[in-house]
Amino acid sequence: MTSRPGPTIGVFDSGFGGLTVLRALLPLIPGAHYIYLGDTARLPYGSKSRETIARYAAESARFLVARGAQMLVIACNTATALAYNEIAAVVDVPVVGVIEPVVHMAHSGGKQTQVLILATQATVQSHAYLQACARRDLQATEKACPLLVPLVEEGWIDHPVTREVLRIYLAEALATCSPSAVLLGCTHYPLLTAAIQQTLQELGSSAEIVDSASATAHAAAAVIATLKTQSPEGTGAATFECYATDSIEKFQRLGSAFLGQPLNQVQFIDLGG
Amino acid sequence: MTSRPGPTIGVFDSGFGGLTVLRALLPLIPGAHYIYLGDTARLPYGSKSRETIARYAAESARFLVARGAQMLVIACNTATALAYNEIAAVVDVPVVGVIEPVVHMAHSGGKQTQVLILATQATVQSHAYLQACARRDLQATEKACPLLVPLVEEGWIDHPVTREVLRIYLAEALATCSPSAVLLGCTHYPLLTAAIQQTLQELGSSAEIVDSASATAHAAAAVIATLKTQSPEGTGAATFECYATDSIEKFQRLGSAFLGQPLNQVQFIDLGG
Repeated sequence: MTSRPGPTIGVFDSGFGGLTVLRALLPLIPGAHYIYLGDTARLPYGSKSRETIARYAAESARFLVARGAQMLVIACNTATALAYNEIAAVVDVPVVGVIEPVVHMAHSGGKQTQVLILATQATVQSHAYLQACARRDLQATEKACPLLVPLVEEGWIDHPVTREVLRIYLAEALATCSPSAVLLGCTHYPLLTAAIQQTLQELGSSAEIVDSASATAHAAAAVIATLKTQSPEGTGAATFECYATDSIEKFQRLGSAFLGQPLNQVQFIDLGG
Repeated sequence: MTSRPGPTIGVFDSGFGGLTVLRALLPLIPGAHYIYLGDTARLPYGSKSRETIARYAAESARFLVARGAQMLVIACNTATALAYNEIAAVVDVPVVGVIEPVVHMAHSGGKQTQVLILATQATVQSHAYLQACARRDLQATEKACPLLVPLVEEGWIDHPVTREVLRIYLAEALATCSPSAVLLGCTHYPLLTAAIQQTLQELGSSAEIVDSASATAHAAAAVIATLKTQSPEGTGAATFECYATDSIEKFQRLGSAFLGQPLNQVQFIDLGG
């Protein structure tokens, strides 16, 4: 479907948080063509049933493959937690989710025995991280941090209120565990890495931060290397197509901060529902 | 459809915030039968297009009338702002929204010349309050407060972080206007009335708070008095039916705080989509 020299990679999220995963992909696979889809009409996935999320995610996956994607990155914790198998079943390209790579990265660090997972309420309730950790004999504690996404979306990245909220959440979590690694289980959280690191130190923890955006990008690069493209890393600069299923105003306004560079014109696409 | 002596009132919101309106209705129409619908599968409405919101809201309105509602209260700012006419067009019962009553109440106070409207980003972007104020020659300033709903849903009602966020939002707003009234343009905000009042005073403002829940309940009571029910206020205690279109766990957990009394069993209803 594509005559490009480099790979075409589809990246999917319910919103624009997954752009942090795309940002992490860029230095690893610099010459790819990226197709990003934010299913903004139907976000947040977190309050919806497993069946509904699986249907939405499968539609999004089919759209990306129809546009030429040779692999899919599910840059959405809820969709990965609740619908990874359903997505993989409807497309014939490799599918990388955000949960296994970050747990694998924490585990392969070797010295990790106890990890703390920061995530949204919906992701915590799915216990997908807990189960992925248990399969690797990692002792895990999950902490729901429902205010962090709204704070990031308000743009309060380096802000006293955000630091106070982090202090409260992390102090509550550290009262129940002594982690050697903190996993960022939400694609919004990489924007708070510095603030989380600083707060951990203030609370006397030397845990290292492992973020799912970076871990997922490394896993995707490993998969791309196995594809029979002319050039796994592509040639020249990355190119982008960006789609949203509803209101693109907020998407365009915040997307640049998540991607770390100006966001191309976002196109509206109707997937129904 | 009903043989009850009192009126049957349908109350609709995209979530459970509208329960603050139901709470305000109870003392005014104590013997009614209330049917509450939270369209939780499709919230938040704020990020969706006008056409989509109108379709969702019309489906919800039809459901409530089919269940026997003799009047509808749209206890949702976004649905009122973007789809009042579409809702009123598909049902043959009176429809009361949340915007006109609170603006009317602020205006009829007589001494108001300048009002400050606190609301979500979506409601502010619709400028529905600004237009309703302009029709009554009220000078209005709108202030989007995107963190207040997440803070209320986190349960941080009387909390230092919430007070700090209010101080920031209200100081920003008061730098541009000197309101004699502050309108709470979101059904979550009545839970923060005391904190908002205190913060206004700390910032040197003597503005009075007019909340849309209370104003809407008074408007609904006035409409009910014109219906040919056997007893406009009903007899005996209020009875409830409560429906949600998806995950009812959060609804039941937070609903009691919004309603101010234990919430009956919430029933799941599938409206499609």
